[in-house]
Amino acid sequence: MSVTGKVICIGLGPGDPELMSLRAHRLLTSARVVAYFRKAGKTGQARRMVEGLIPGDAEEWPMEYPVTTEIPFQDPAYNAALAPFYEEWAARLAAATAGGNVVVLCEGDPFLYGSFMHLHSRLPEGMAEVVPGIPGMVGCWNATGRPITWGDDVLTVLPATLPEAELFRRVADTDALVVMKIGRNLDRLRRALAAAGRLEDAWLVEHGTMPAEKVRRLGDVEGEAPYFSIVIIHGRGRRP
Amino acid sequence: MSVTGKVICIGLGPGDPELMSLRAHRLLTSARVVAYFRKAGKTGQARRMVEGLIPGDAEEWPMEYPVTTEIPFQDPAYNAALAPFYEEWAARLAAATAGGNVVVLCEGDPFLYGSFMHLHSRLPEGMAEVVPGIPGMVGCWNATGRPITWGDDVLTVLPATLPEAELFRRVADTDALVVMKIGRNLDRLRRALAAAGRLEDAWLVEHGTMPAEKVRRLGDVEGEAPYFSIVIIHGRGRRP
Repeated sequence: MSVTGKVICIGLGPGDPELMSLRAHRLLTSARVVAYFRKAGKTGQARRMVEGLIPGDAEEWPMEYPVTTEIPFQDPAYNAALAPFYEEWAARLAAATAGGNVVVLCEGDPFLYGSFMHLHSRLPEGMAEVVPGIPGMVGCWNATGRPITWGDDVLTVLPATLPEAELFRRVADTDALVVMKIGRNLDRLRRALAAAGRLEDAWLVEHGTMPAEKVRRLGDVEGEAPYFSIVIIHGRGRRP
Repeated sequence: MSVTGKVICIGLGPGDPELMSLRAHRLLTSARVVAYFRKAGKTGQARRMVEGLIPGDAEEWPMEYPVTTEIPFQDPAYNAALAPFYEEWAARLAAATAGGNVVVLCEGDPFLYGSFMHLHSRLPEGMAEVVPGIPGMVGCWNATGRPITWGDDVLTVLPATLPEAELFRRVADTDALVVMKIGRNLDRLRRALAAAGRLEDAWLVEHGTMPAEKVRRLGDVEGEAPYFSIVIIHGRGRRP
């Protein structure tokens, strides 16, 4: 196979299309093939963010997950379903580079809990390229209108999927905090924060930098939260 | 004072000007007044990043720190020198909004260990606005060409200015790691990483995404590191 192009994953940023980098915008608006992950039957967040920016003659390749939350990720069936999916798409994208670059969309930053890494690790050495983006968490702390870290603050980033005792231990031992992957884990996280005496400092940011953006004190929130939500506690480091 | 404009701090991203957001670029290239922090007598990193992008008829206001590393920050003289400096510039920028927007430059993301927050907290409510940027650490982990976090990885962000015992305790208890504010603290950090058995996993990224970018295993590095350097340890979470 003669490789003339690359598989370039562009980080689109936290949601607002104007927060995309100049480089991501240039690659996107001159793309020949645009691939993106989505849940079967949905438009997908990444695709929605680039509405109106993909050239009219570009091919679109939606990569539909064979499974998302139907199987718990601890179940061996989860990996069994996803591994061949990533294998097949890696092979297809690699083959397409014979005709030039292939652009893969990614919300936030591709190297921070992104799905592209599962293609990246399966592509031939040197074929993949990544354009960093503003992570979702950065858009969310900006949405609160206050700095996340000052001076010597320690910042801890946790997935809410961790066991409750582990969440408790870590939220009790940090200055600033970001918790990702909230969704169904919100109740567990809320209990951990309350036990650590930090619930009143916590903010829930839903759809940060998007039109539906909503910033609330976590203590005032009942029920579940959407997937695109993040919990924030601001640091309080030294300040002149 | 009649306020018609805002003080808008734009995050410029990690170094490469093409990693600036579309919004930051739009505000910068239409600016009337552009202010930026710098060490006295130096061009300053933020100013260097926007070379050729500031409109010819815009005013430039360098805000020169009265002190940077000459006084240790624990010394009361440090705050005594900086507080009036921030007060004066906050007042001057606020006054300038009578004529329209004032743009303040910031490397990385303004709310992550940025200096703008010291102006932000001194400006009248509602006058300041922040445009998020790709943090320096995101540019640095992208420079290593590998994901920083996978699956359920915990990410800890530390300033290398912390005491050695505290650095040790935290690097021993995280999956992925970012250490900022390296400079003169590199030796202390290296000892803490070695004691925690993690020195061989650590990378030193200098000038991430800039022309002088340099990525090395920390174990191979001797001596000090420049201010714009970050230490990275990648997570190794679950992966299908």
